[in-house]
Amino acid sequence: MEHGRVLLDHGSGGEASQRLIRELFLSRFSGPSQPALDDAALLDEIRGPLAFSTDGYIIDPVECPGGDIGSLAVHGTVNDVAMLGAVPLYLSCAFILEEGLPLPLLTRLAQSMADAAAAAGVRIVTGDTKVAPRGAADKIFITSAGIGRVIAEPAPSGSRAAPGDAVLLSGCVGDHGLAITARRGGLSGLEGIRSDSAPLNRMVEALVRDVGDLHVLRDPTRGGLAATLNEIARQSGIVCRVRETDIPVRDTVAAGCAVLGLDPLYLANEGKLVCVLPRHKADTALSVMRLFPEGRDAACIGEIAAPGADGKAGQVVLRTRLGGYRLLGMPEGEQLPRIC
Amino acid sequence: MEHGRVLLDHGSGGEASQRLIRELFLSRFSGPSQPALDDAALLDEIRGPLAFSTDGYIIDPVECPGGDIGSLAVHGTVNDVAMLGAVPLYLSCAFILEEGLPLPLLTRLAQSMADAAAAAGVRIVTGDTKVAPRGAADKIFITSAGIGRVIAEPAPSGSRAAPGDAVLLSGCVGDHGLAITARRGGLSGLEGIRSDSAPLNRMVEALVRDVGDLHVLRDPTRGGLAATLNEIARQSGIVCRVRETDIPVRDTVAAGCAVLGLDPLYLANEGKLVCVLPRHKADTALSVMRLFPEGRDAACIGEIAAPGADGKAGQVVLRTRLGGYRLLGMPEGEQLPRIC
Repeated sequence: MEHGRVLLDHGSGGEASQRLIRELFLSRFSGPSQPALDDAALLDEIRGPLAFSTDGYIIDPVECPGGDIGSLAVHGTVNDVAMLGAVPLYLSCAFILEEGLPLPLLTRLAQSMADAAAAAGVRIVTGDTKVAPRGAADKIFITSAGIGRVIAEPAPSGSRAAPGDAVLLSGCVGDHGLAITARRGGLSGLEGIRSDSAPLNRMVEALVRDVGDLHVLRDPTRGGLAATLNEIARQSGIVCRVRETDIPVRDTVAAGCAVLGLDPLYLANEGKLVCVLPRHKADTALSVMRLFPEGRDAACIGEIAAPGADGKAGQVVLRTRLGGYRLLGMPEGEQLPRIC
Repeated sequence: MEHGRVLLDHGSGGEASQRLIRELFLSRFSGPSQPALDDAALLDEIRGPLAFSTDGYIIDPVECPGGDIGSLAVHGTVNDVAMLGAVPLYLSCAFILEEGLPLPLLTRLAQSMADAAAAAGVRIVTGDTKVAPRGAADKIFITSAGIGRVIAEPAPSGSRAAPGDAVLLSGCVGDHGLAITARRGGLSGLEGIRSDSAPLNRMVEALVRDVGDLHVLRDPTRGGLAATLNEIARQSGIVCRVRETDIPVRDTVAAGCAVLGLDPLYLANEGKLVCVLPRHKADTALSVMRLFPEGRDAACIGEIAAPGADGKAGQVVLRTRLGGYRLLGMPEGEQLPRIC
């Protein structure tokens, strides 16, 4: 099974499908007690409200420094569930495979998913595999969905940012977007830049338990930090004010972006979160974030203000490095297709 | 929004994405109380065990008599959840769109999903949209995941078929597979054959409440009835004995299959279920099934036997029209790619 290529037969629902699922996926994904061959997974009762999310992954290339489409499909959905102040518990994964995909690659990606799920403490409990004829899909697409138990009360939401809140960012931005750009273009000098793909659920759990009163949690993926801050400003009808000098960006990423004409505030991240909460909780929240390796560079990057002379409801105002102010707009078009 | 085509910008996470999601999807999918712009949906507590399932849909053509990829993505996942003896409640949907897909087509498919969800009584609560550059995906792929509340105790499973059980089938087989074949080949004389795509959750709910003791529920999709019966026989380690003359097949489907050299027992269905339960409950179960339009042709097609001289554990034995016996094997290869 670990040699050869994906055939149309692997998507037939017959003998070849069963073998692929059993040997390649179930052996890696299922726990000891999982009746994994039924149409749906049977899960124990979950007490309290639930978080439910899904994301499709079509990233190209499928493997890059710091991650691959498999780990990304786990981290991305784990993080989306966590952003509701929830503990992610279960994932589903649906594969769309292109006929001819090398089985050794699929095996690596499945192992990467299993490892990412184990590291995040979630279980992949149900899935599906379809095979598209050569040329009808590009290599592999993975769609995951996740279920979690909401532990924040009330749950954070993009609509709950309030004047007086602080805006925190858990680490450096731009790594994932630049790593993919560099890998895709074969750009020399940027090989060291790695995707930041990582699960954020343990950090969120600590923030909920040890800090509380989280108004907004959101991970700045596609569209980057700029899109996320604009979404929050619009959903809450407030002004988001951020300071360019306080937004952490790695030197290598800043340099790479300067060369390529990219803005790190618009580049995708896969292991960062924005947290908006009352100002008096900001320091405690930052120290909790910094307990985690992925939160080492956490910083307070700005605050939420009421609409007024300095900004309208829904706007993001950036204080630039030179001390001026400019609107940080919502990205209009696609900076980089197939980034996640 | 209802003219034009899908652009890469629609998958960027920025302004164009937001507009597409808001105008095309949210307006159709979200309920009055849904805070639909967060990364995950917040769901009320569900009492009791959960069913969780996912399926990817890559069917070609995307529209065919009796259904389309949108209604199929709703019915298929609703049915997979229901097969655990569960009431499906919530769906997620993730779109992978090819750049250039006509927006009027996407609008029709979104409306079809919304209609199918309303008819089945489930809510589409969270989603995702990615756009693949032209040629990297074929038109549209949809992956849905579903959550339901398990009401059968114990839940039915492919591993619970027992000697003495009856094998029931809720209606005619082969319609979906033949409708797609006919449409794809532009075969004349078969235009009247329609996909049987339909939600089965209300029938399952009635079976659980009014009959009970359902050992196995499964919908014979890819691989057809033959694959489903083989899965059950293997999972339960029993022999499944079925009678060809009792398996309902529409005359037009039987005739179409004869002309094309297809076996209706291996063709996909999207609105049928197999129910295995104690023999003394068979008649009641059949009358419950027949209360539903999609169960009008329900029939008892065979029984479960212990392994012995007439069959080994994991085998499906078919009594043919002529009175002989043959093994109904698991399909080995792909009869028809992109059937669902």
